[in-house]
Amino acid sequence: MKSITLVSGGMDSVTLMYQLHSQEAEQLILSFYYGQKHTKELDGAAALSKGLGLDQLIIDIDDYGLAIKGCALTDYRKDVPHGHYEAETMRDTVVPGRNAVMLSIAWGLAASCGADLVSCAVHSGDHYIYPDCRPEFISALSGALALGTKGHAKDTLKINTPFIKMTKGDICSLGASLDVPLQRTWTCYEGGSVHCGECGSCIERQEAFIIAGVDDPTTYLVKHDASHISELKRISSHAGI
Amino acid sequence: MKSITLVSGGMDSVTLMYQLHSQEAEQLILSFYYGQKHTKELDGAAALSKGLGLDQLIIDIDDYGLAIKGCALTDYRKDVPHGHYEAETMRDTVVPGRNAVMLSIAWGLAASCGADLVSCAVHSGDHYIYPDCRPEFISALSGALALGTKGHAKDTLKINTPFIKMTKGDICSLGASLDVPLQRTWTCYEGGSVHCGECGSCIERQEAFIIAGVDDPTTYLVKHDASHISELKRISSHAGI
Repeated sequence: MKSITLVSGGMDSVTLMYQLHSQEAEQLILSFYYGQKHTKELDGAAALSKGLGLDQLIIDIDDYGLAIKGCALTDYRKDVPHGHYEAETMRDTVVPGRNAVMLSIAWGLAASCGADLVSCAVHSGDHYIYPDCRPEFISALSGALALGTKGHAKDTLKINTPFIKMTKGDICSLGASLDVPLQRTWTCYEGGSVHCGECGSCIERQEAFIIAGVDDPTTYLVKHDASHISELKRISSHAGI
Repeated sequence: MKSITLVSGGMDSVTLMYQLHSQEAEQLILSFYYGQKHTKELDGAAALSKGLGLDQLIIDIDDYGLAIKGCALTDYRKDVPHGHYEAETMRDTVVPGRNAVMLSIAWGLAASCGADLVSCAVHSGDHYIYPDCRPEFISALSGALALGTKGHAKDTLKINTPFIKMTKGDICSLGASLDVPLQRTWTCYEGGSVHCGECGSCIERQEAFIIAGVDDPTTYLVKHDASHISELKRISSHAGI
């Protein structure tokens, strides 16, 4: 079983890479530079794939990312919004077409080398804000890409999204159980040297560790007040839920 | 009406650019460097879009193109096959996923700037060899991309393929009627300084001029024997067909 695995360097995709590795899948790791301010995520992707002895390609598509107007992840004139993913301001972190572009490139490479899977770590927490992480999109794109490479890819090639119904808390638990070095994964959207702790992505990361009951090894510039989550867990635990 | 128009620099896409210009569409021209040997096509795309006063972006995705194994358009160890498009050897000119990648990038940019169309000059002659030029692929991809940018693109955004049922001969006629400087368009897959005349793309070009009854201004290294086409035209004309 050969997988082209999209690995950004974040907790989700790195856990997916480790999971596939534990299942003895052959993998080519694909990472993308699309002009994101947080290129630091690519350091983790490179180091951790190398650590597992996997080949990695970093594909530069920054001409595309930098041509997108008004996206807070790529436009240095625009601040990365702080707050929860559900907030309206988080719309600014959408890079229109990003997953379609990355998955299409991965699919093309998968076709050319006869791979069985294009693996991608989208999860249920992504669905609200990012339309290109939703199951209906993944399914439609997979069908389109199969038509577009008919006769040039394995008929069974598919987009593999094992985390699509999982929460980030579930992924954190899984990562811990697979001994993923979670401290080396990178989540923050800011371009800083440590996690800011306040962007939507950092807040979701902190909550995931708390919900999973896994010690958070991350250094945050500002620690998110997650007492509501801790309280919820305390009550649940007390009630034996 | 604003269109993101894919223009390679070939006869088809340049004619499309001119047609949309004649219809007074606002256009952003998108061209791609994907590692193709025939970068010469990009010269025409740049000069001709500039000539119409249109903005052009050249998007570099060569990390993708060069990672594709065994493609004669990008792999310098592999010769560009000569002969008709229908020949089995022409399979080597397929770049798996290419149109999905380019159209996804164009769609993302279209979403970010509120465009109405992503325009692309696929035509009926492409369908046989290139699965990603077929109507069923374009339709499926369009549906997937709309899902993937829901809430971030115009609901009416679509992939516009006005030539999809036309032949290259039809496009050549249309180009001539629109005063497209066809001599400045580039078709050949080889990396030479003049058209080779023998690759599938050059043969199709020569036949298109003959079928359209348009003087072919192109310099070919080797002229294709298209007497069967001329004969067909002579008989048709004689019979008043």
